[in-house]
Amino acid sequence: MKNPILVPELRELLQKKKKRVLRSFLEDGHSKEVAEFLCMLNTDEIWDIISLVDKYRRSEIFSYLDMECQINLALELSNKDLSELLMSMSSDERTNFFHHLDRETANRFLLLLPIHDRAEVIKLTSYSEETAGSLMSTNYMTLNENDTVEKSIKLIRKFAPSKETIYYIYVTDDEGKLIGFVSLRKLILSKPGQKIGNIMKKEVLFARVDDDKEMVARLIEDYDLIALPIVDANEKLVGIITHDDAIDIIREEETEDLEKLMAISGGVEEKAYLDVPAFVHFKKRAFWVVILGLFALVTGLVIQHFKDTLQSLIILTFYMPMLNSAGGNTGSQSATVVLRSLALKELLPGDILKVIKKELFVSFFLSLCLGAIIFARVYIFSNPESFPPNISVFSVAVVISLSLTLQVLWATIFGAIVPLFATWLKFDPAVVSSPLLTTFVDMGGITIYFTVAKIVLGV
Amino acid sequence: MKNPILVPELRELLQKKKKRVLRSFLEDGHSKEVAEFLCMLNTDEIWDIISLVDKYRRSEIFSYLDMECQINLALELSNKDLSELLMSMSSDERTNFFHHLDRETANRFLLLLPIHDRAEVIKLTSYSEETAGSLMSTNYMTLNENDTVEKSIKLIRKFAPSKETIYYIYVTDDEGKLIGFVSLRKLILSKPGQKIGNIMKKEVLFARVDDDKEMVARLIEDYDLIALPIVDANEKLVGIITHDDAIDIIREEETEDLEKLMAISGGVEEKAYLDVPAFVHFKKRAFWVVILGLFALVTGLVIQHFKDTLQSLIILTFYMPMLNSAGGNTGSQSATVVLRSLALKELLPGDILKVIKKELFVSFFLSLCLGAIIFARVYIFSNPESFPPNISVFSVAVVISLSLTLQVLWATIFGAIVPLFATWLKFDPAVVSSPLLTTFVDMGGITIYFTVAKIVLGV
Repeated sequence: MKNPILVPELRELLQKKKKRVLRSFLEDGHSKEVAEFLCMLNTDEIWDIISLVDKYRRSEIFSYLDMECQINLALELSNKDLSELLMSMSSDERTNFFHHLDRETANRFLLLLPIHDRAEVIKLTSYSEETAGSLMSTNYMTLNENDTVEKSIKLIRKFAPSKETIYYIYVTDDEGKLIGFVSLRKLILSKPGQKIGNIMKKEVLFARVDDDKEMVARLIEDYDLIALPIVDANEKLVGIITHDDAIDIIREEETEDLEKLMAISGGVEEKAYLDVPAFVHFKKRAFWVVILGLFALVTGLVIQHFKDTLQSLIILTFYMPMLNSAGGNTGSQSATVVLRSLALKELLPGDILKVIKKELFVSFFLSLCLGAIIFARVYIFSNPESFPPNISVFSVAVVISLSLTLQVLWATIFGAIVPLFATWLKFDPAVVSSPLLTTFVDMGGITIYFTVAKIVLGV
Repeated sequence: MKNPILVPELRELLQKKKKRVLRSFLEDGHSKEVAEFLCMLNTDEIWDIISLVDKYRRSEIFSYLDMECQINLALELSNKDLSELLMSMSSDERTNFFHHLDRETANRFLLLLPIHDRAEVIKLTSYSEETAGSLMSTNYMTLNENDTVEKSIKLIRKFAPSKETIYYIYVTDDEGKLIGFVSLRKLILSKPGQKIGNIMKKEVLFARVDDDKEMVARLIEDYDLIALPIVDANEKLVGIITHDDAIDIIREEETEDLEKLMAISGGVEEKAYLDVPAFVHFKKRAFWVVILGLFALVTGLVIQHFKDTLQSLIILTFYMPMLNSAGGNTGSQSATVVLRSLALKELLPGDILKVIKKELFVSFFLSLCLGAIIFARVYIFSNPESFPPNISVFSVAVVISLSLTLQVLWATIFGAIVPLFATWLKFDPAVVSSPLLTTFVDMGGITIYFTVAKIVLGV
């Protein structure tokens, strides 16, 4: 979307004071596109341009600027301009803006807000980042159940410019408790004289300020909502979360899960990859790499324990990568499939026996496949002269294919039940990341391998 | 949400013909919740209950039933009832329904639709599953630019019940070409006498029927849209995709990427995990498990090539799991981070030198950490008596830690550049799944390991 060619043109329009053209640029485009162009100008220029439109449009465009650009611009504005800008921002964007300020600047900016808004910013920034409260907007529209449709539409026309959405309008009682909602669609279709109380839906889906934000996104997703109302501990309506917030939550959750699955620790970075210093990348990755490396040293100790077996039959080493690969891949696959089904609520931890049964069948077929391949490889292509005199090629082929079969069975079942147990114990099942799982599967696999060799071949 | 206690109560209400109570149950709840309850009744009962509400509500609830339940119910309805039901369904839900019918049933049901609807179903089901066309709804609202606001609101009141959304209304010219859009919000805020042409936004974001559906979801996400219009090759408006569809696309994409990353092939199953037969699970997993197993056999050949080195210094085997783990994990991590940044458009393939520079720093720190740990482990805890007389513990510790350092450098850089190359070659970078990457990293790692040992120790 970025088109740097426009920057000189914008500058020219600004110098020639072609306000009408500039204004139509600001009003016709989507605020996000406009903001992307503006970001390439310097802060004075940005302000000169966005001053041309009304305060709501101005603060909307402002919210779409890069956070860095927002802060730089805010720092250069007069108190009066900044105060008006902050007051007309939607509350969730404003909370986000304050989240990114250092404490001193935040305190200075807070003083520019009227007491009511100031209290709101302090309250909203105090919610934990994982909760609905931290994301909600307080710019929602409410009506009284005794209002008529006609009066409601008048109220909407009056207050709409400052509201995040007017497509869902919430109905509250005198104490501010949520008692229903009405969509703008329903309102348009109803007769002017009807009472809101008679046309509203009383069964309202809602979430609480301290509910997990992922649960909120899930509700919006499942019920195809445009917005979900958020209530406090006293059931009072205090905010809304909209469909676009839900998408952002889902995307963030996706990155988080992916990073967990690839053993990258810490929260999701807000900055782009190249903007994050190398040492920060290192810190996020080092923890698991070191932990998993230490576990791999334990697997090494298992090998060391069987060193006599290995010394007399060095061929066993040649098939360690295959054993490792088959175990790691089948284990990760079953873990991924089960994890996904748990996340989509298709499975519950109580389904463990059904899962084991299913995975036993799957791993039976998989191990048959792999076992046959490796048996053929060992039996046909091995050089019997490199074996001790009392050991036949056939028996070695049996040992290796049998171990592989057992390894695949073990890995598949282990991969499937670990996420179930994690869920049952109320852990986030994704913490049992694929690399951690693979490490344990490998440890088990090596033990199976050498034990089978020792028993069958007696070495 | 499921609450089976209600089923007997519903049955009782039905037997006692308490139509008013049943109707309020159907009208007050969210269609999804209502559908979940109804699914537990038999088809006759479901129909008796949903017949109580008007045809639009009825078909909305119908669309939320399980696909199996929808088909069973449809098969038992009279032609007249089914025809009315299909005609009042929203077009995207209807397309989805026809997608799930066998050819014979689909043809039979098609005959129940008027010629115009029939042509539409045939056209919509013909779009490839990955395109915008296959998902779009044709139940959108259009206006003419010469209509006044007052007339438009009258039109909306008339046509709203059959439309998917009335919050965005599209403006078309006499040939049906998309020339602008107006939000219901804007309409409510405008004066009754204003012309649509004067209040509409002319800069409309849109997609084409054959655009990839993931791109459509990305537009809705980036611009916080409620709906995106879809045009055909002649720029004529032919459908819309709504915010809830975008969430579904994002979720499906997420599952797909995750499965690719875990080497599970084939498309995403629509059925739940337990409902998919074991053999289908097997087929989706076998391909990559076998391919990767074969690659691992090649790694085994590399080990075999160095078998003399190994035989004289069996200690090298003990650290193979550590080398394997460090390479696999650091490689997967850098691949994951780069993949994610590519998907979020933070990185372009042209940034390759910047990425290499960043990853060189990260892997430098990582290899320092791991190298130090393994040097200490080998130097302090090894038993020199098991070594050949001409080889010191110190030199073995140097070989192992040096190999590990090189392995981490190689794995990190390889993991980072492979997704960049894949993107540059217009492959989906996620096909370079983590297990495939790990396999190559391991192959390289083993070669590095034994080559270093051979050169430094001369064994």
